[in-house]
Amino acid sequence: MSTLEVRLPRGFRAAGVTAGLKASGRPDVALVVNDGPDHVAAAVFTTNRVEAAPVTWSRQVVTDGRVDAVILNSGGANACTGPQGFADTHHTAEHVAELLGISPGDVAVCSTGLIGELLPMDRLLHGIDAAAGALTPDGLERAAVAIMTTDTVHKVAGHSDDGWSLVGMAKGAGMLAPALATMLVVLATDAVVTPADLDAALRAATGVSFDRIDSDACMSTNDTVLILASGASGVAVPREDLTAVLSAVCSDLARQLIADAEGAAHDIAIEVREATSVDDALEVARAVARNNLFKCAIFGNDPNWGRVLAAVGTTRASFNPARLDVAMNGVQVCRAGGVGDDRALVDLAPREVHVLVDLHAGEESATIWTNDLTHDYVHENSAYST
Amino acid sequence: MSTLEVRLPRGFRAAGVTAGLKASGRPDVALVVNDGPDHVAAAVFTTNRVEAAPVTWSRQVVTDGRVDAVILNSGGANACTGPQGFADTHHTAEHVAELLGISPGDVAVCSTGLIGELLPMDRLLHGIDAAAGALTPDGLERAAVAIMTTDTVHKVAGHSDDGWSLVGMAKGAGMLAPALATMLVVLATDAVVTPADLDAALRAATGVSFDRIDSDACMSTNDTVLILASGASGVAVPREDLTAVLSAVCSDLARQLIADAEGAAHDIAIEVREATSVDDALEVARAVARNNLFKCAIFGNDPNWGRVLAAVGTTRASFNPARLDVAMNGVQVCRAGGVGDDRALVDLAPREVHVLVDLHAGEESATIWTNDLTHDYVHENSAYST
Repeated sequence: MSTLEVRLPRGFRAAGVTAGLKASGRPDVALVVNDGPDHVAAAVFTTNRVEAAPVTWSRQVVTDGRVDAVILNSGGANACTGPQGFADTHHTAEHVAELLGISPGDVAVCSTGLIGELLPMDRLLHGIDAAAGALTPDGLERAAVAIMTTDTVHKVAGHSDDGWSLVGMAKGAGMLAPALATMLVVLATDAVVTPADLDAALRAATGVSFDRIDSDACMSTNDTVLILASGASGVAVPREDLTAVLSAVCSDLARQLIADAEGAAHDIAIEVREATSVDDALEVARAVARNNLFKCAIFGNDPNWGRVLAAVGTTRASFNPARLDVAMNGVQVCRAGGVGDDRALVDLAPREVHVLVDLHAGEESATIWTNDLTHDYVHENSAYST
Repeated sequence: MSTLEVRLPRGFRAAGVTAGLKASGRPDVALVVNDGPDHVAAAVFTTNRVEAAPVTWSRQVVTDGRVDAVILNSGGANACTGPQGFADTHHTAEHVAELLGISPGDVAVCSTGLIGELLPMDRLLHGIDAAAGALTPDGLERAAVAIMTTDTVHKVAGHSDDGWSLVGMAKGAGMLAPALATMLVVLATDAVVTPADLDAALRAATGVSFDRIDSDACMSTNDTVLILASGASGVAVPREDLTAVLSAVCSDLARQLIADAEGAAHDIAIEVREATSVDDALEVARAVARNNLFKCAIFGNDPNWGRVLAAVGTTRASFNPARLDVAMNGVQVCRAGGVGDDRALVDLAPREVHVLVDLHAGEESATIWTNDLTHDYVHENSAYST
């Protein structure tokens, strides 16, 4: 498996255009089309009970394991928009289907932006016309640019393997369940796979990638991860191989999301070792990742390890408080639940921070990636307008 | 019941002095003594499993329902300090007991400040000497000042009733379970009460006051709420009356904590109505109160109600997303899960904000008080040093 220049696998075309949904005038409509011969698809969605109209629609579209095209827009989430919002999503899919000569029931829809506003449908439909006319096998990057909201860079990743490839694009900064500020991911492969294998591989891959980033603990109404398989390579890929490649691509995209999280100054890996279960390790890591006091301390380059222990102490994981060890960037600041090496030895200047919590309770481990809490995070989110 | 000038009830003396634990040179040691004739006490503590040495000590002290004195220090939490930290707490209680001629097992200890540093015991013991020499029935405010850390004002509250009174002092900003940045509260009454009644009244009162504020969702290792009853009024107070007065005083102090929360620019009441249970109402209110994106929006005076719904959608409470109503400062911005009145009508300039979520699912309601997430919060907590 090797990283390649990221371009769409065989059987796919994509486009990204400007429809005028964003006040900034930046690209805001993307279209990804699977020309087959296969049209296998799988997806995972936000678990938020207040789900956007496009999530409700796409959840239904993907149930039969077939998706021919995905239409995505930034500049509006179409969430909390009632029956009119759902009608707009339906209309969007029908318009795409008509242009491409496919069934509306095979068109997935994704939206991202402000909640509680109806989409300007005239502009969106004209944008879809333009996108359909601009479809090209080289369109991945333009599509990735068109789904950006507060992202500062577009995100793509890909891998090739013996005769087949898999690529993905993503927007947002956060996690899937729960998830933040809308994460949208579309993946494409020319592998020959069954719907069952594709679904199993996607759930396994998102479980160890997007589900293990947690920028600010906020779950979106719109999160969607879709994968389409064209079969155009003619290479039948076993579930295990597909899962391995898909996990690598999703982890790459997840790491890019954290690296571009709103206002973040540090990317923080919270690694928990010697837990009695992976669930325990994840609960502890997530508790630290969500602790605002800890996140502020990292922003201030302050190795305030007491806040790590205070967060660990809120969990139900198996551990003895008197045996906890904590290291920050390699310095063991807490030993056996008490004072360890001098906290002044910890250098938090680099963007990447490693916090290691050893529970000394079992043999499992897990890592959650998160960000610090910064002035820029507060600034960007106190007057959201894109 | 009427609010009175807040001074200690009969049977109590208190003091606040400067021991030099804080770099700022501000007062940092407080002592509260119950001279009786009764010495009834009850307490609730943090549920954090990583608990500070003084919490471990005081939990034991209060088990027999008797406390004669409480010694409190700011300038150091004595948390995650291992066996030496516990020995220091023990030594502190013994020193107080010796000075006052009481048993060390009747001396509660509270500490607040940075986690993971041993207390400078020489300074602390000298401070205790000074505090014991300064004890006076007029000492409540000086004691309240000496337990401040990042507090900008000291907090006291009191009520009197037919022949008896009850007062309290508090430091911190946050909630009890979970709780933040150390909340310490000492309450005193001259009522004649049984240990069982005092304990029941305290648990009922904290459940509807300190447990319903949640400034930043961070639980401290040191939170303690202690109540001492001297019986010096000679008035036997029934449990119901005691609970009512205690709830009022605790709610007053809780509201003061929110009003002085670190860096906050808004005090936000999240009221949830028509829930099927109080637990459902609290779960929904707490989910909104802990949503960083919502808290940033309020800081920016942005009535971004979509973030309220996105937070509500993460809960397991009973509701139909298509029936949710949300009002912000009296403007019904969300009606039946969709767009309501113009969000531009909402005035978020005042410090106090009221968010009303109507679940239309039952007949119960509850309110959680929280704060916005501000530049000053990030600033104060990115280089904590008090």
